[in-house]
This record gives sequence, structure tokens and C-alpha cells, in this order.
Amino acid sequence: MLISDPEVAAALDAATSVDAMRQALLAAYHGRLVAPPRAAASLGAGRMVLTAGHLVGQWYGYRAYDTFGHPETEQVVVLHDGRTGAVRAVAVGEELGSRRTGALGGVAVDALARADAATVGVIGSGGQAWTQVWAAAAVRPLREVTVHSRSAARREAFAARVRAELGISARAVDTAREAVRDRDVVVLATTSPTPVLSAADLSAGTHVNVVGFKQVDRAEFGTDLLDAATVLASDSVAQARSYAPSMLAALPPYASRLRDLGAVLAGTAPGRTDADQISVFCSVGLAGTEVFLLDRVVRILATAA
Amino acid sequence: MLISDPEVAAALDAATSVDAMRQALLAAYHGRLVAPPRAAASLGAGRMVLTAGHLVGQWYGYRAYDTFGHPETEQVVVLHDGRTGAVRAVAVGEELGSRRTGALGGVAVDALARADAATVGVIGSGGQAWTQVWAAAAVRPLREVTVHSRSAARREAFAARVRAELGISARAVDTAREAVRDRDVVVLATTSPTPVLSAADLSAGTHVNVVGFKQVDRAEFGTDLLDAATVLASDSVAQARSYAPSMLAALPPYASRLRDLGAVLAGTAPGRTDADQISVFCSVGLAGTEVFLLDRVVRILATAA
Repeated sequence: MLISDPEVAAALDAATSVDAMRQALLAAYHGRLVAPPRAAASLGAGRMVLTAGHLVGQWYGYRAYDTFGHPETEQVVVLHDGRTGAVRAVAVGEELGSRRTGALGGVAVDALARADAATVGVIGSGGQAWTQVWAAAAVRPLREVTVHSRSAARREAFAARVRAELGISARAVDTAREAVRDRDVVVLATTSPTPVLSAADLSAGTHVNVVGFKQVDRAEFGTDLLDAATVLASDSVAQARSYAPSMLAALPPYASRLRDLGAVLAGTAPGRTDADQISVFCSVGLAGTEVFLLDRVVRILATAA
Repeated sequence: MLISDPEVAAALDAATSVDAMRQALLAAYHGRLVAPPRAAASLGAGRMVLTAGHLVGQWYGYRAYDTFGHPETEQVVVLHDGRTGAVRAVAVGEELGSRRTGALGGVAVDALARADAATVGVIGSGGQAWTQVWAAAAVRPLREVTVHSRSAARREAFAARVRAELGISARAVDTAREAVRDRDVVVLATTSPTPVLSAADLSAGTHVNVVGFKQVDRAEFGTDLLDAATVLASDSVAQARSYAPSMLAALPPYASRLRDLGAVLAGTAPGRTDADQISVFCSVGLAGTEVFLLDRVVRILATAA
């Protein structure tokens, strides 16, 4: 019943995770996955935050995490049986959350990037940047990854990890501009509260996944990126609208163009219609998706047992 | 790290549980236990509810439960290390919650009932009624328990359990009035939305623990009980004030008299000052107390290991 990070990592390869998140986005779009805004309780210097989900007729559950910023903080994801209410599994750690976010980005790349996309430029070299590339490699045969982050040692380590674990050619580069130049897919996954790229540096036809800050006065990109984008999508427009301060993409003139990735997957909203369009995916972390992924882990472990 | 109901039951006898809840109430009163109102996320037919707590400098955590009303529903309680953020323990089941509520009632009996209280009258024969008697027996040497509930079979079984597990003389009786007549302590622990007793049936000097519904138009007692009470206390006046619809004891003319049990324990608010007073404890379930009790379980298991 208690599932650890190594068990999650063994069960969830990138293709499995991306497939699960595609199913989750479609379930949310069709109303089968109920995913309300987060709830929080203030505990002084930090908050406990609950993001819950309910796959009607099958399961319900939640992820709980805190905002204290402690060094070894761990998230908890709980899966309840939808018929009996009994707890089927509890996962403690970080792997479910990071694979979930990476896999949502992988679904976005699959749905919105050009079919022949083969190069990825990454700004950021942390865990979030890693799972974005890990998932992108499951939906497109990648030829080369370029990466920039402030620390030369960390970006070199990131490139080495891409080569070693994904078997893809990878180079660490000195500037953000170099990292995104002539790339089919760009990933922004920094902790920066100010823009780390200029939209003018992107090539026509690039798809961008934005993972870091996206709010007014606290965003790793500027409105130039949203102005350049023909296609603007999020894993949850409803959640994007609930942020305070507001998310840039949820304000005019962008709000009316922001569409649910689930609607694109379902074919009821357009995705990319031209190879030269810029598309942008604003990742917010659809509620209930960690539980969706934990349900997948439980099924995989049951089959293996 | 995963703690089951049998482990909780083995670690937490009534005296230990009552002691822990006394410490929790004092910690909340002195501001060391941060216990905010509950947070909830709607999942369609039910809600996920989070009650969180933070013992400053030591731990933080939460209990999560749902309101679907499934037959085998289980609660989850999570304890985080206050310095590192790591998860120290996860408890799945019902024992922590039920022992918590019982033990809070035990603290109330200890603080507010007459020193020579020896008889208990119970209305209700479910799990909540049981833990109230279980905890009361840890703070007063009980001579006799009387119990009434609608089902003759269930009230007879309850009396038999009191005799068998607590070694106390116990009788099932046909009416609520008989159950509470000439009792030093009375427990209301029903699921009734309408009054199950008349305050006129209580003897002078009785202490009453109210565990079931306490709200306007949905309460197992009437305002006659609050009118009769000289001493009116709750484990959390702040939580009592946050209910919707309102709790009877949080409305005028009672609100100004409702005091925190923690203040009584700390000696800054009066408890019983006369053997003939009626005292009433409105149990609301101070947030963070399940985590407080889980921390106690973890310490006990560590000592035993």
C-alpha cells in the first residue's frame, strides 16, 4: 500500500506516463475527472496544500504538499477506491509529482509541436527541466538537445545526463539565446521571476513548454512570447484563471485564446494548423493527475505481482 | 512509516491518549500548536477535507478525510518532521480519529466534571459513544454506566462491552431519560439531528459531553441544555464559530460564555466553581490533534523498538 520513489520510477517510464496524462486530460475534458482548484490551510510560515481529483466511478484522492521550503520535504499522494472508500495506495516522495509534470509537457509536445520536431532547447537544468526532456523524447525521435542555465557545472551535468540516460546528442551552451536558436521545441523550466528569453530569438514553428513562473510581475517569459504565439494552451484553463496574482496567459488579450490541451486532444479546439506557427503550453499541473498516475502505478504493480 | 489501526490501538491506551490531548489543548492555547480551520475541495458527490496542524519547531501535518459516505472509508493522517520536511509517518484507518475524539472528551470530563464523578449516562451506542466512556474511565474511577440507544440489541452489546473491556457495571435502559437520570457525567453521541434529551432530566452537578450534531436546526440537544449550563466549553471556540450553519453554542446569548477548554486547563478561564453547576463540553475536534496523537504513537513505537 505504501509506494516509494524507487517503485514509482520502476513502474513509470516516459511513454507510460505520457499515455496516462493524455488519458487524464481527456477525462478532465469530458468531465469524468473532477479536478477542483487547490485548497490550503495556513500553518504560520507555510501552508498545507491539497489538490484533489475524482475519476467518477473509479477512484478519488489527492496530493498534499507544503510550502515551508524545507530541504527534504516530501509530497504525499493518496488513492481511494471509488466504490468502498478504502485507501488503495499511499505514495511518499517526489517521483510521482515530477513525472506527472514532465508527462503533461510530453503530451503538449506531442499535440502541438511539429510532427518532424527533432531538436529541443532547454533553459534551466533542474529536475523539472529533466522530466520535460525525458517525456519529449518519448513522443518525438530527438536528434539534439541544447541546454543553458546559470551554473556551467549544472548545465554540463544536464547535457551529460541526456546523453547517458536518453542516448541523445546534447550540448551545454553559454547563453539562453544559443539554447533556443533553431530549435523545434523549447522548454522553460527555471525558478526565475523575470524573463529568461526573448521571443525574437525563437525560430518560426517552435513549440514552447513553460514550466516555471507565469504570473504578472513574476514570470520567466514576457508578453512578447504570448504575442508571438498563435496557439496558446494549458492543461487546465480553469486553474490558470484561479491564480493570484493572475497568470499572464489568463489575462486579456490572451485569455480568450487560451485553450484546454484536453480540448485539442479531443479535437474540439484547434492545435497547430501551420508548420510556421509558434505554440505555447502553459503548464499548471491539472489537479488529480498525480492520483491518476498513482492509479496507473498500482495497476502496473498488480500486473507484475 | 505506514502505521495501521492495530498499531495505533496497541500504542494508545486511554490514559496516554487523554494525556496527549491535554498537552495538545494547552499547546493550542499557548499558540505553539497552529490549528487553522479546515480546508476542502469539492469532488462532486463528496468533498476531500483537510485539517492541518503545526507544533512549531517540532512537526506539522494533517488529517485528510472525505464526505462521500462510502462504507469502508479510511482517513489518512500524515506527520512531517518540522525541521527537514520529510514524512515521518502515515496512518491509515479510523483508530487515531476515534481515540482523538474520545480523549478530548476525557480531558473535558477531567477538567469539568465533579471530582467525585462516578456514574456515566450515555445516549448513543456507536463508536463515538464507546471512546467517550473509554476515556472517561481513565480520568475518574467509574462505578456504573447506563446506556440508551434506539436499538435494544446495540445498547445491550454496548453495556456488555463496557463490562467486559472496562470492568465497569453497565446497564442498557429503555429511555434516554432513564440513561441520564442521577448521572454525574452524560455523553450525547448520536447521529440525531433533533434533541434526544431534556435538560430537565439532568441532575444538578452533571457534566455533559456533546459529540453529535450541535448546529441550528440540526442538533442532538436543544437550547434548554445551554440555558441550564453554567460552564460552557469547547476544544476550539474558533472552529466552533466557523461552522455553517452556526453552532448553537457559538450564537448569542451563549457565544460570550463559550470558553476554550485549553484556557480552563491553563487556569485563565474558570471551570466548574460549584458542585451543583451543570457544565457542557461541545466537542468539535481541534485541528492538528490527530497529528499530535500520531506523533505520540511514533514516539511510543520508537521507544518500544
